[in-house]
Amino acid sequence: MASNAIVGQSGGPTAAINATLAGVFTGAKKAGIDTVFGTVNGIEGILKNTIVKLDEILTSNDQIEILKTTPASFLGSCRYKLPKDFSDPTVFEQIFSFFRSRDIRYFFYIGGNDSMDTVAKLSEYAKQIDYDIQIIGVPKTIDNDLAVTDHTPGFGSAAKYIAASVKEVARDSDVYDLKSVTIIEIMGRHAGWLTAASALSRCENSVAPHLIYLPEVPFSYEKFTEDVKHVQENYSNVIVCVSEGIKTKEGSFVCESASSGLTDVFGHKCLSGTAKVLENYVRDTLGCKARGIELNVLQRAAGHLLSRTDIEESFSFGQEAVLAAMRGETGKMIIGTRSDSESYQLQFSSTDIKNAANAEKTVPLDYISDGKNDVTEEFIKYASPLIQGEIYPQYQNGLPVHLVLK
Amino acid sequence: MASNAIVGQSGGPTAAINATLAGVFTGAKKAGIDTVFGTVNGIEGILKNTIVKLDEILTSNDQIEILKTTPASFLGSCRYKLPKDFSDPTVFEQIFSFFRSRDIRYFFYIGGNDSMDTVAKLSEYAKQIDYDIQIIGVPKTIDNDLAVTDHTPGFGSAAKYIAASVKEVARDSDVYDLKSVTIIEIMGRHAGWLTAASALSRCENSVAPHLIYLPEVPFSYEKFTEDVKHVQENYSNVIVCVSEGIKTKEGSFVCESASSGLTDVFGHKCLSGTAKVLENYVRDTLGCKARGIELNVLQRAAGHLLSRTDIEESFSFGQEAVLAAMRGETGKMIIGTRSDSESYQLQFSSTDIKNAANAEKTVPLDYISDGKNDVTEEFIKYASPLIQGEIYPQYQNGLPVHLVLK
Repeated sequence: MASNAIVGQSGGPTAAINATLAGVFTGAKKAGIDTVFGTVNGIEGILKNTIVKLDEILTSNDQIEILKTTPASFLGSCRYKLPKDFSDPTVFEQIFSFFRSRDIRYFFYIGGNDSMDTVAKLSEYAKQIDYDIQIIGVPKTIDNDLAVTDHTPGFGSAAKYIAASVKEVARDSDVYDLKSVTIIEIMGRHAGWLTAASALSRCENSVAPHLIYLPEVPFSYEKFTEDVKHVQENYSNVIVCVSEGIKTKEGSFVCESASSGLTDVFGHKCLSGTAKVLENYVRDTLGCKARGIELNVLQRAAGHLLSRTDIEESFSFGQEAVLAAMRGETGKMIIGTRSDSESYQLQFSSTDIKNAANAEKTVPLDYISDGKNDVTEEFIKYASPLIQGEIYPQYQNGLPVHLVLK
Repeated sequence: MASNAIVGQSGGPTAAINATLAGVFTGAKKAGIDTVFGTVNGIEGILKNTIVKLDEILTSNDQIEILKTTPASFLGSCRYKLPKDFSDPTVFEQIFSFFRSRDIRYFFYIGGNDSMDTVAKLSEYAKQIDYDIQIIGVPKTIDNDLAVTDHTPGFGSAAKYIAASVKEVARDSDVYDLKSVTIIEIMGRHAGWLTAASALSRCENSVAPHLIYLPEVPFSYEKFTEDVKHVQENYSNVIVCVSEGIKTKEGSFVCESASSGLTDVFGHKCLSGTAKVLENYVRDTLGCKARGIELNVLQRAAGHLLSRTDIEESFSFGQEAVLAAMRGETGKMIIGTRSDSESYQLQFSSTDIKNAANAEKTVPLDYISDGKNDVTEEFIKYASPLIQGEIYPQYQNGLPVHLVLK
């Protein structure tokens, strides 16, 4: 009997999730798994029968190398959530009937919180019906908000892109001899890891960002104004990094303050981002030049600016998932633990999926400065190793080459 | 008597303008010029006496290499305009008194339209007072809107960043199995060169952007809606690239339509970008997921993603300025002319500054498709050579190294 595997990607795309896919595929072939299927658009692909054979797609080392630096989810993604329990087992039966039909004995699911919930439910259902399959979750999210693991694959590359972009924006804002405030909006609804990473931008000749506001701390417009004024005593061009998800102590998102009932000339609701709201606020309150910059999806899709550490680890996470499955583990998620050694080293292991599913890790208080407008040296020590090293995509005709599923 | 030079940078920063500065400095030292001064914040530096000695700053080849890939203006910039004529010569006298005091015989000014106006006026004034100086302008602008020259230094790197970013956004938007429209806003108030460059993103497995709107063509919301619907017949995820400066045939900017008299909850004027306006418009009109992305200053400051062709040419532009000065030319701007050869080659020469100053070059009609929502193959042939080749900055601690004036 053949022993086959299937792999899927789920949740928001990242610049490193395909490196994990490459790791799963490479690991599976090394382990002697016969056919490696891919499910298109995550678990939905199994339900809609959009399945590909990765063996027929990834036919050369060169393609695997290109896959590693291709951003977003090669196999597509979904936000699908499995039913809460097995009271109506239709969906579960459909999935396992597919597994049976293709002799699938290994299922690898690369994703965030919701995806780990899928892993938990499917491995539980397999146990119930006594179907022999190893189901392993592999974490990914630029948000770095998964519990248990030291950090998540994808965070390092996004952090590197953010820190590099902040550094470049700082150069740009410094060219004129006038006062300016630049507000850079960074992803993170509940967890401020990525915004905190903007601090990595600093070096001996570049002090930006001058202020950092995370969603872990209630945002006060008055405190913000005072902070900016204070920085302006020493610097003409102030760079402020904010999480998209900052909110006031009353609990309302800053980005909502401009969109409450406003409509434009067409009658369309006027939606605005956090940076834009603060840009308008600064211009009107402090009377100086202000600019809001939203890094938007570029921060999770920048395959042209990757952390070598992140890409190599992401690949290893995928390989480790296969090794765990081969050891007979199921219902587990692969995690990384930092070793105590002087230099940075990551050790891989697995944890029960229930430790990871539906838990959210925010930035701890000892990573946030006393003034609540910056990060601490402890955070820098934690995050700095994750952006080290470069890996460049192949270029053709002046642009990065991507592997795309036809 | 010593024979010294001074160099300044002016106008909006780019990712290549420092490569031109490196070219001027290197060329000047090769030509035997004694001291190379730099004026901080363009011509204002001479008036405010903020002058540096580049010989004391650029002391190694390594520093010159770092300067080449440092974005924005190393010497700072200004938007200062010299008086219209010489009826009140105070400012001109001040500048030439400085030239005399330091034995300045060469002035190189790297900038856009306004900067060429400065070159024109100063060289004319020098003639009037019979002061022996060679004044040469070196073009730079990501906008590519300077007349006479085939293209401007800085355009190629911005174009490469834009095309690469559009390609990455296309990967990102493709991951979900749902309908979406992504609107990417690109710099260009009057000239659509950079937005047109988004078309370079296309390759055999990536068709985005599906629609391109330039400021050279009046924008119609109805036509736009029809265009998007048409693309949606074949593609779920539509990528639209628009210039920030698109306006309706009545002459009002699209970005103004959302900001007419609106205020947020604080009473601040609600300013919005073109992409955001169209995002709201699409969401309300077509009822699908919509996202606006503004590439913002990142497109002119991305020193981490440079066109080797652009950086090498920008450096050469600087060197050529020195050579022209050494030939006794003054009141000239360096230009590049494309040779007729099969493969791309740029030849350098100079033109009378009056041909370049205050003239604006927009995208010609034969570069715009008949449907007015795309560019032609002729444009691709023109622009493609300019983004070829990669040059990577030095990295330290995971981030690009910048040279910064203390």
